[in-house]
Amino acid sequence: MQTKQSWLSIPTDTDFSLFNLPVGVFHTGDHTPRAGMAIGDHIVDLAAAAETGLFGKRRFFTRIFTQPTLNAFIALGKPVTNRIRKKVQDWLSMPEKPENADRILVDRKTATLLMPIQVPNYTDFYSSIEHATNVGKMFRPDNPLLPNWRWIPVGYHGRASSIVVSGTPIRRPKGQILPPGGAPDIPVYAASRQMDFELEMAFVIGKESPLGEPIPVEKAEEYIFGLVLFNDWSARDIQRWEYVPLGPFLGKNFGSSISPWIVPLEALKPFRVKGPKQTPPPLEYLESKGAKNCNIELEVIVQPAGQTKETRISRSNTKYLYWSMAQQLAHHTVNGCNVQVGDLMASGTISGPTPDSYGSLLELSWGGKNPLKMVDGSTRTFLQDGDTLTIRGWAGKDGQKIGFGEVTGTILPSL
Amino acid sequence: MQTKQSWLSIPTDTDFSLFNLPVGVFHTGDHTPRAGMAIGDHIVDLAAAAETGLFGKRRFFTRIFTQPTLNAFIALGKPVTNRIRKKVQDWLSMPEKPENADRILVDRKTATLLMPIQVPNYTDFYSSIEHATNVGKMFRPDNPLLPNWRWIPVGYHGRASSIVVSGTPIRRPKGQILPPGGAPDIPVYAASRQMDFELEMAFVIGKESPLGEPIPVEKAEEYIFGLVLFNDWSARDIQRWEYVPLGPFLGKNFGSSISPWIVPLEALKPFRVKGPKQTPPPLEYLESKGAKNCNIELEVIVQPAGQTKETRISRSNTKYLYWSMAQQLAHHTVNGCNVQVGDLMASGTISGPTPDSYGSLLELSWGGKNPLKMVDGSTRTFLQDGDTLTIRGWAGKDGQKIGFGEVTGTILPSL
Repeated sequence: MQTKQSWLSIPTDTDFSLFNLPVGVFHTGDHTPRAGMAIGDHIVDLAAAAETGLFGKRRFFTRIFTQPTLNAFIALGKPVTNRIRKKVQDWLSMPEKPENADRILVDRKTATLLMPIQVPNYTDFYSSIEHATNVGKMFRPDNPLLPNWRWIPVGYHGRASSIVVSGTPIRRPKGQILPPGGAPDIPVYAASRQMDFELEMAFVIGKESPLGEPIPVEKAEEYIFGLVLFNDWSARDIQRWEYVPLGPFLGKNFGSSISPWIVPLEALKPFRVKGPKQTPPPLEYLESKGAKNCNIELEVIVQPAGQTKETRISRSNTKYLYWSMAQQLAHHTVNGCNVQVGDLMASGTISGPTPDSYGSLLELSWGGKNPLKMVDGSTRTFLQDGDTLTIRGWAGKDGQKIGFGEVTGTILPSL
Repeated sequence: MQTKQSWLSIPTDTDFSLFNLPVGVFHTGDHTPRAGMAIGDHIVDLAAAAETGLFGKRRFFTRIFTQPTLNAFIALGKPVTNRIRKKVQDWLSMPEKPENADRILVDRKTATLLMPIQVPNYTDFYSSIEHATNVGKMFRPDNPLLPNWRWIPVGYHGRASSIVVSGTPIRRPKGQILPPGGAPDIPVYAASRQMDFELEMAFVIGKESPLGEPIPVEKAEEYIFGLVLFNDWSARDIQRWEYVPLGPFLGKNFGSSISPWIVPLEALKPFRVKGPKQTPPPLEYLESKGAKNCNIELEVIVQPAGQTKETRISRSNTKYLYWSMAQQLAHHTVNGCNVQVGDLMASGTISGPTPDSYGSLLELSWGGKNPLKMVDGSTRTFLQDGDTLTIRGWAGKDGQKIGFGEVTGTILPSL
């Protein structure tokens, strides 16, 4: 990786190095949403940069970068989005601070980050073999990993409307649960007592495909614009009672959170790694070679209400995922299902092989049997009202980090 | 029901009587989409009517009715959409043909009907107890109706991107199936051999709800704009192998079809009926009184390639549904899940109590064991390439029919 220097002071430990340049949507005091790229403690205001003519076609790009979401920008395709990224990288690498710098740079502290994309469709996969096995052991002790799991990148449709940007509080849902010690199979209507998170990554579709035409696995990454951190909040008691036979529904669709910065797949090139060996070998339409996984380090933090200290409850890595993004997308479309720009496809919970790398409280506390100790002395099996849960992710080292920032959310009491 | 007469010649047996006036989007030769209301063999061009000033606010309504979908119109709310409907009804009931009639009326034969809404989210319920029991008997013989079914209006998220308007051909999907007589749990990649339809109705959300706030069951119908016929095409062999534990995915998301005319809930008022008695009584948030079901007659037709004769394979009725639309929507949002204008919520397969009223080939042929005889002498267990499947639906009698028209689609061979 080449070393780059900037006239801008960029903190060494920042997630947003010159090699990263993720895109998002923000506003400052004026409440006018516009597109930006994160760099160190700043944001490159892409609308302002477009107005100065930095990208050519002044009027066109100004319009693109003043939309309330990035969908129109992403839909321009990788040749254009990569060119814009290169232009910004070059601008930040100029020998001296350019004259228009103060007009284009925004202090990140003054900006509010918004939902970066309008999500037409959201799919959640289930691609960690460790997670599928752990959950299977608890939900179906006699049959933990189902016979289809090693053949199919199992996935299901989720709710797009309730995907929110990091920082949005999440209200504890009410619904049907089987009360412990109650009559078997007689539910009550109550607030969930088993609020959980799921540590996931999601990719954003950058190119649409027509209905009826599969995307071949070797071309799948052409359709992936970038990645975000994803928290698939889950109410385990609601989920357990409802999920048979048609899958999770109200145990999930009260909210899912994404990180505000989309890291382009391009930026992750140096961090691509091979995935786990797949046994049995996948069917032909899922056969895939090369470094199709990513080496992205992940951590999960809990902060009880009023506490400033953080408790790290998990460390994991996307490299553990059994099924790659390319395989997920090839599978999703093998029947002709079409994809649209802005579609989100989440990995499913990313659990690693050791208990400290599990990606949900369900697994970390093993169904509530092993409470986790917080730095303030309290314990958790599931999340309490007022708890703030944060996921962070990054690839690379200080000075060259490709970081995702974080996705965070605080649990509000039920209505 | 009051009798109405029109200066326009309206066939007695039409689905689109003066009491109906469903809305849709169409174009004629010029390919400019605009909104319309079906009346007999004609369409009231709402954009043209708005231009004549029929609705007041000429510029505003002209803009609303020249959108490519009805979402903006529906979002205006029932006071407005009902007023427009009344205006058109009054206009059609004038004592003499008005001067602007030829400018506003379009011959339905010259129009191409388009997808009437942009669907932000699509949910499929499973609300027929007969269907759930029938499918349960085949998929889980020891456990047909699961313990949660009588408590929960079971539903799951489907794919919004692949919902198409009636008339769009459906390509037979490929995917993973367990070949008959093959090794247990070893799939092959092949075209589905069990292409099926599902006879459903869907309602269209007309009013958004904020994230975190449930819609109470007694207010649910305020959020329902209208209804369409819905065919949830299903590839049973793909579905059977994939659906555990997270629900149907590729067995469904290659395509779903809707009828082009949205019948407003208002038009169905005279045809509301009580649903079946619910045992056990539902939990408080699902408690609901009054005539919450609809009496809509349904029929399903198969037409093999090249045949002009139709074979009717099923007759059913929405009145059989165990869970009402109001209960479905109250359940969907009880956890705070938000809804958006244009969201589609389908009923699930509407099977009646007798074998000739089942709503899928899976049930009609009982898993392929009892082939159905077509009028041309051929037989069907599942759909063959070239088959055209049509669903029709209507309430009321000749002269006062509230008809849905039809949703139809032809199976194309797999790629």
